[in-house]
Amino acid sequence: MHLLFLAACLQTAAALNIFPYQNASLPPKQRADDLLSRMTWQEKIGQTGGNRRLLSDNLFFNKTLYDILYPLENGNIGYGSQANTAQDAIPIVNRIRTSEYNNSRLHIPYITVTDSVNGIYLRGGTLFPSTLAVGSSWNIPLYQKVVAAIRDENMVIGTHWVLSPELDLAQDPRNGRLGEMYGEDAYLVGEFGSQYVRTMQEKDEDGFVKVATTVKHFVYGASKGGVNTASMHGGLNYIFNEVGLPFIKVIQEAKPLSLMASYASVDCVPVAANEYLLQDILRNTIGFDGLIMSDAGEVLHLYTQSKVAGSEKRAALWALQAGLAIELSPGKRGTFPTLIESVNNTKIASLVDKAAHQVLEIKFATGQFERPLPSMAKLNATLRLESHLEVNRNISREAIVLLQNDGTLPLPRNTTNIALLGPFADIINAGSYASFNSTDRSLGHSFKQSLQNEFGADRVQYIPAVDFIDTSNRSGIAGAVAAAKEAGLAVLMLGSLSVDTDDPLFSKRTDGEFFTHADLGFPGLQQDLIDAVLDTGVPTILILSGGQPFVLNNSTLRANAIIHSFLGGEFTGDALVEIIKGTVNPSGKLTISMPQHSAAIPINYNYLPSDNEGGMGSMTGVQSPAWQFPLLTRDVPMPFGYGLSYTTFNISKPIIKVQGQNVTVAVSVTNAGKVRGSEVVQVYFREKHTKRPVETPVKRLVRFAKVEIEAGHVERVTFTIPIKELGYYFNTKWGVDGGLYTFWVGSSSKDQDLQSVEMEIEV
Amino acid sequence: MHLLFLAACLQTAAALNIFPYQNASLPPKQRADDLLSRMTWQEKIGQTGGNRRLLSDNLFFNKTLYDILYPLENGNIGYGSQANTAQDAIPIVNRIRTSEYNNSRLHIPYITVTDSVNGIYLRGGTLFPSTLAVGSSWNIPLYQKVVAAIRDENMVIGTHWVLSPELDLAQDPRNGRLGEMYGEDAYLVGEFGSQYVRTMQEKDEDGFVKVATTVKHFVYGASKGGVNTASMHGGLNYIFNEVGLPFIKVIQEAKPLSLMASYASVDCVPVAANEYLLQDILRNTIGFDGLIMSDAGEVLHLYTQSKVAGSEKRAALWALQAGLAIELSPGKRGTFPTLIESVNNTKIASLVDKAAHQVLEIKFATGQFERPLPSMAKLNATLRLESHLEVNRNISREAIVLLQNDGTLPLPRNTTNIALLGPFADIINAGSYASFNSTDRSLGHSFKQSLQNEFGADRVQYIPAVDFIDTSNRSGIAGAVAAAKEAGLAVLMLGSLSVDTDDPLFSKRTDGEFFTHADLGFPGLQQDLIDAVLDTGVPTILILSGGQPFVLNNSTLRANAIIHSFLGGEFTGDALVEIIKGTVNPSGKLTISMPQHSAAIPINYNYLPSDNEGGMGSMTGVQSPAWQFPLLTRDVPMPFGYGLSYTTFNISKPIIKVQGQNVTVAVSVTNAGKVRGSEVVQVYFREKHTKRPVETPVKRLVRFAKVEIEAGHVERVTFTIPIKELGYYFNTKWGVDGGLYTFWVGSSSKDQDLQSVEMEIEV
Repeated sequence: MHLLFLAACLQTAAALNIFPYQNASLPPKQRADDLLSRMTWQEKIGQTGGNRRLLSDNLFFNKTLYDILYPLENGNIGYGSQANTAQDAIPIVNRIRTSEYNNSRLHIPYITVTDSVNGIYLRGGTLFPSTLAVGSSWNIPLYQKVVAAIRDENMVIGTHWVLSPELDLAQDPRNGRLGEMYGEDAYLVGEFGSQYVRTMQEKDEDGFVKVATTVKHFVYGASKGGVNTASMHGGLNYIFNEVGLPFIKVIQEAKPLSLMASYASVDCVPVAANEYLLQDILRNTIGFDGLIMSDAGEVLHLYTQSKVAGSEKRAALWALQAGLAIELSPGKRGTFPTLIESVNNTKIASLVDKAAHQVLEIKFATGQFERPLPSMAKLNATLRLESHLEVNRNISREAIVLLQNDGTLPLPRNTTNIALLGPFADIINAGSYASFNSTDRSLGHSFKQSLQNEFGADRVQYIPAVDFIDTSNRSGIAGAVAAAKEAGLAVLMLGSLSVDTDDPLFSKRTDGEFFTHADLGFPGLQQDLIDAVLDTGVPTILILSGGQPFVLNNSTLRANAIIHSFLGGEFTGDALVEIIKGTVNPSGKLTISMPQHSAAIPINYNYLPSDNEGGMGSMTGVQSPAWQFPLLTRDVPMPFGYGLSYTTFNISKPIIKVQGQNVTVAVSVTNAGKVRGSEVVQVYFREKHTKRPVETPVKRLVRFAKVEIEAGHVERVTFTIPIKELGYYFNTKWGVDGGLYTFWVGSSSKDQDLQSVEMEIEV
Repeated sequence: MHLLFLAACLQTAAALNIFPYQNASLPPKQRADDLLSRMTWQEKIGQTGGNRRLLSDNLFFNKTLYDILYPLENGNIGYGSQANTAQDAIPIVNRIRTSEYNNSRLHIPYITVTDSVNGIYLRGGTLFPSTLAVGSSWNIPLYQKVVAAIRDENMVIGTHWVLSPELDLAQDPRNGRLGEMYGEDAYLVGEFGSQYVRTMQEKDEDGFVKVATTVKHFVYGASKGGVNTASMHGGLNYIFNEVGLPFIKVIQEAKPLSLMASYASVDCVPVAANEYLLQDILRNTIGFDGLIMSDAGEVLHLYTQSKVAGSEKRAALWALQAGLAIELSPGKRGTFPTLIESVNNTKIASLVDKAAHQVLEIKFATGQFERPLPSMAKLNATLRLESHLEVNRNISREAIVLLQNDGTLPLPRNTTNIALLGPFADIINAGSYASFNSTDRSLGHSFKQSLQNEFGADRVQYIPAVDFIDTSNRSGIAGAVAAAKEAGLAVLMLGSLSVDTDDPLFSKRTDGEFFTHADLGFPGLQQDLIDAVLDTGVPTILILSGGQPFVLNNSTLRANAIIHSFLGGEFTGDALVEIIKGTVNPSGKLTISMPQHSAAIPINYNYLPSDNEGGMGSMTGVQSPAWQFPLLTRDVPMPFGYGLSYTTFNISKPIIKVQGQNVTVAVSVTNAGKVRGSEVVQVYFREKHTKRPVETPVKRLVRFAKVEIEAGHVERVTFTIPIKELGYYFNTKWGVDGGLYTFWVGSSSKDQDLQSVEMEIEV
């Protein structure tokens, strides 16, 4: 039976006023109250779990596993394999949705909860660049369009709850999940995250939330050793002023309906069992009142990995007590079904009631009881809509960052031959959550294809030369060198591979979830390749690919131009060609600082003042950098906010005034070059001294705006910053100090790119 | 006037019962009460500061600075330059001591407070190996003799308060101060630290404490980026179970009279201004009731570096409020003199009273009012006593760790020619707090001298080949290679230099305080040197020198034998010769794990279970190591507790029993080889699962014993472990779980070197 028909029946029922929970005109909370009161103990527990891996590769539906899980894990579903296309999978999923609806005693529909990083979870949608790439655009209005497109594509496949946005701070470059993060700065992450939540959770004409969001991973971002699920230190001042800050902002500004507890142990206590952090802090201090879910498999991990629980049941109880309402347990039984034994425990019963209620509320809020099943017609009409592709082209262009250029770029019009080298030039390196086959060319173009389309296949000689990771075969390097010499121009695309688990190149991954790169250089023999090419003296353009920063050693820095493309989307190859040709002027800015040595980390621009006091300092009068072997300061040449353009922008000395409860910042930006371009004007600040004994960063981003300016034109850019934003937390209390402040305005976080004004502020 | 005479006068005065504070038979507290009541506001403030750099190089006494500081900073003194010898400096210092005593209205003597790492602060005493080296002996009874010798040498120069022991955990190998630490494990550090405090603070026949100690740096050990004075994250569970644990143990077991607040900001709040950490936690929860002092210059840093205070006065007030009683401010005015203005503030006055009282109490406790001035006769008779040198020879032998040996060591008796290579072979690399000139040969021998003494100068060809840090000159490598080939045996001594600020090699330092080595390889061209030598195939012995672990890459690991000598003392050269000849059987064990990549850190053996869960893990069934590029697990080949011998020890399967409130562990250790040797039997444990939701390490050291065994003999080793020690902290509360435990016994922390027993423990 089609759900549309069912919905019609339900409307009739509601008209007859059979059950309040079936009455769409009542608020979600009231409907949830009513439904919960009709549910059995077993039905309630069922809502806290789900079947996360509905279909395996080739659309295989494992009915046996489904039937095992079903009785106690029937609240939500996930699609399973990302290798399936939406077009193929949705008809099957619709049948399962219908069957569940019909078999459920109270006709409670599933809610579909999925990851959604570069776009929809299944193949067949628009493939956007990764989050880190998108963050590098610094373009919030454009990002709004990206999120709206992803939202609309999610809705037509019946996904009304996504496991995004990821608000973790990208402060440990060893962590393989950086590609899923916006960047290293809490304000920037909060701006993107808030926009994401507001756009996804927009209400439709019926007042239903279009797609519920999940802010994650609370909290995480600088795990021990950069290792994926490792523990994290950090007391409350650190959490409130750093890793937790984007959560506070997004929760308070955009009200995400759910939040995911991180894999990490915070101060030795796994978050999934951390009642203090999730209740006292997150709920009662920060004020989050949505649903909390576990990360995949994490409740079981309390027993099997972190070993803080002696049994699955203990793990389930602790997680429930900490406030978790949904346990994600892909492909296997979770621990929450063990709660079934505790039917007579009133405390547990009340916690299960609360959990089930939260799940039901989101189902009601997102219209799960009323929305029709996805229709194939609408799906086909919406996925890869021309307007989505256009937005994708635009964000792809803006997500690319030009790091170095001696004038070689843009290429002169008379460029004839190009030697294209490196293993990354003929794939799409889209990230571990991209529903995409990196070697498939049916959608989008690899950089090689784009380049050959532009310059002609005969003019672009492509030699991968070395493997992604293998170090045994260097036989291709000689040919690459010869090709570079012959062409007189070398373009190398090097990096670190991040693809989904179903990808044919999966075994060659060095980046993405589950991966930690202690070495921030290039895997395999890629460094040997570029060294050999640069030794020839042939003009060389290096394009970086990967969801991470790379250490660019002195040899690599000989490249005439260096571009970072991060984890790209289906149009990143085209955008790179537009940029190297100069038809698009690069406008991306780094949101992660580029370290100069793998162990000279963390290197985020917003370090605490004392973090740079490693050297002889004031004790001996001998100033020396933070790291003495090798000699490296914390102020790196390519930090947060840094990125070049083909034109020259002059930003005037800022005029800064206190006006009532606000600080206003005004600058003129002149495009002094010969081509149109976009500049990201960045405002940073810090109090001269804090008045409570908390160290605050040497500077903090407080505003940014991307402005497009014609050659020779001037644009006025003004910012209004409420004084109440210029504060910091001490013992969980926000406060703003009166006193002297420094404001910096400019084109990157580098001191050389900023002009500062000091200003007395009264509070 | 000689203080001995003065003391006699005072005795008379006491007999006449003039002032109670002059009565040596009263307890220190009562004497301090009395003295304080007679002091002016200015005199009280004076006790909280001192003149830390009394003499510059060449015994220069800066009278102008002294007179400026004197009125408000006159509680303690430090000697200043380490380049001066005790023999030269003490007569001058004695004059200053006498003058202060005479000029002080109430005749309050200075107390001399100095660092004491490898021995006394001034030159001329016995130079022991660094703390990390000494820790590698795992020999507590021998360490007791070392500390007693250092104590006695301190007393004869009039030092009755030392800035040791350093209880920081050596868990970030980038930190240049590792050489000053005992190692990475809290239990081991606590055992050494307790022994240090007990031995130093022994009472003399008059009931006076011989030398007061200062446990430091509370808390520190894993600063951001490994940078010297950088911030540290960490909530209370981390502090109580890891970095704070040795402090808790030493405070509770050995009652050190003072403690130094660390340079670090902990959870963003600098410790020197961290009232919560120093009062609520350290005093009221941990129970420390001694004196708290600042690290050098740190109170001023609150204003100038961490910028949490807007003025010197604010910095002073916060530090005082946090509980600091002494401000160390070497070579310049401190901030505490600004307190003079607050004469009418009763709260500040009461805090100053408390601070001055604590200083006076230590002066009384250590007999400062009664002890005679140091006599040159006693000084000359005590410094470098033959018994001290003998203890030094023994600890030097036991501090060396054999890391790799294919049978090349010990060298056969018929060894004739040796090519000795590398810049470290002809210096003594003793550490940044060693009062020693690394190139001076008047005391002790460099390894080169020791080797030439043994084998003959004509048989040992020494070629430094490369510089300590310079990379411009590789001309020496060819000669080194030729020498190696000619000799048929190469011995290389490579490392990282750590010398004091007065050392002629100071500019070539890469290790020691103020230094952070993000790169854990060899500075300069040393790697090129060893690569070239190993390429020849000539048998090669590598000796490491430096207060740090080194990354030994695959090239380096080709060496036939590898020895770590850390930062050595004056007899380390001799001990190395004894070991390579085989007259001494190596018995040291690493107390710091050797990382395999500079950024694959932290790598301490006692990581939390989830810290190794970086890979695909249980989510996919694909087990993979913590770091995937390069592929590295947390279980390194040369971890904590690891070290080889020339004989073979077999440790029997342990017999473990619960007996009353204790667990007893018994093993037989058989020396199955042909030479006498010493084995360190190590006991580790962990609870199968914790019962409170705190992650505890994968294993934890709980006992160790070093036993010397003749070839072919068997020794029985038993340990008694109170069950109450098998616990962990959760929210500052210690508790022991009942349930299943695993105990491991063996010769290192490596699983392969351990045998385990599971055991149910009831509590």
